[in-house]
Amino acid sequence: MPENAKRVFRGVIFDVYQWEQKGYDGNVKIFEKLQRPDTAVIIPVTQNGKIIIAKQEQPGKAPFVGLVGGRVDEGEDVLAAAQRELLEETGYEAKEWELFDAVEPVSKIDWTVHTFVAKGCKKVSEQNLDGAEKIEVLLVDFDTFVEKVLYGDLADIELKIRLLEAKLDPVKMEAFKKQLGV
Amino acid sequence: MPENAKRVFRGVIFDVYQWEQKGYDGNVKIFEKLQRPDTAVIIPVTQNGKIIIAKQEQPGKAPFVGLVGGRVDEGEDVLAAAQRELLEETGYEAKEWELFDAVEPVSKIDWTVHTFVAKGCKKVSEQNLDGAEKIEVLLVDFDTFVEKVLYGDLADIELKIRLLEAKLDPVKMEAFKKQLGV
Repeated sequence: MPENAKRVFRGVIFDVYQWEQKGYDGNVKIFEKLQRPDTAVIIPVTQNGKIIIAKQEQPGKAPFVGLVGGRVDEGEDVLAAAQRELLEETGYEAKEWELFDAVEPVSKIDWTVHTFVAKGCKKVSEQNLDGAEKIEVLLVDFDTFVEKVLYGDLADIELKIRLLEAKLDPVKMEAFKKQLGV
Repeated sequence: MPENAKRVFRGVIFDVYQWEQKGYDGNVKIFEKLQRPDTAVIIPVTQNGKIIIAKQEQPGKAPFVGLVGGRVDEGEDVLAAAQRELLEETGYEAKEWELFDAVEPVSKIDWTVHTFVAKGCKKVSEQNLDGAEKIEVLLVDFDTFVEKVLYGDLADIELKIRLLEAKLDPVKMEAFKKQLGV
C-alpha cells in the first residue's frame, strides 16, 4: 500500500484505501486498493502419510472440497493461525511445520495466502467450528490427492499449477513428495 | 450477490456489500462481499499468426508483461469492451472474435474476467492510451508465447494452467492452437 494511501472505508473483512497519483499525462487520478486479513492454508499429512482435506459448507455457498485454513486474526502470527485453524477445523495437531508458499493472488488487494505443510499430524480433539462453517474431514492418499487437485473437486489453483509442473517433470514430483514426507 | 445485500460503500473501482446471514449455530453474522467492474482480456492473433502481448507500465507498479485488456465500462457490452481495449492499447482491429473463457478469480468478489481470442488482427491506428498506462506492443510467435506463459515473464495464471494441461496432452495442445488459428 502506498504511504499516502488513506483508509476511506472499514469493513468486516475488507478495508478500502485511496490515494491521489499523477499519471503519465500529468493528470492526477484517485487510485484504490483493498486490504484484508491474510489467509493461512494447510496441507496436513498424518503420521500414516495420508493428506487431510476438507469438504466444506458455508451459508449461501455451494459445498466445496478444499484445503483447511482460514483468516489470520488481527495481531496473530501466521504460523499460529495455521496451527489454530488446523486444530479447530480437524482436531489434529502436527509435529512439524514448514512454509510451502506465500502468494498475493490479486494485485489490487493487499492480501497474502500463506500455505504450510504440517507433518506428523495426530488427532488430539474434536472439531471446534464456528457457526459459519460445516466441515467434513477427509483422509486421502497422495495419488488421490493429486487426482483431486488435477482432475477432481479440490479447487486450489496454486496447487494445481505446482502439480501440473510436477507431472511434466519427475524431479519436481519427487521434490513435492519429499516436502510432504510421503 | 445475495438479494438482501446492501451497498455500504461505493468506491472508484470496488463497491462493498453487506448482509445478515444466520449461521449453522443460529447466530446472525454480517457477511461481506465486493463488486467491481468485469474485466475483458484479449489474445489477439495477427493475420500472420503472431500473438500480440503487451509490456505495461502503470504508476506505482513494477513493469510487467501481460495480455492486453481492461475494465468493462458501466453499461458496456463485454465484447465491445474487448474490442475497444484492443484498439486503444494496440491500434489493432480483429476480423473474428470468440470467447475463450470466463472465470471468477476471487470468491468474495463479484467479478468476472472474460478472455477473448481475436483473430485476423490488423493495425488500423495508433495506440490511444490514458495517462494511467504505458504499453509497448510485442508480436511473438506461438512457441515464444507458450514459453513466456510457462517459464517466462507473462504472468497469467489461467493461461498457465491451460498451457500446462496442453503440454501434458497433445490433443489439448492441438485444440488450443486451433482456437488461436495458428
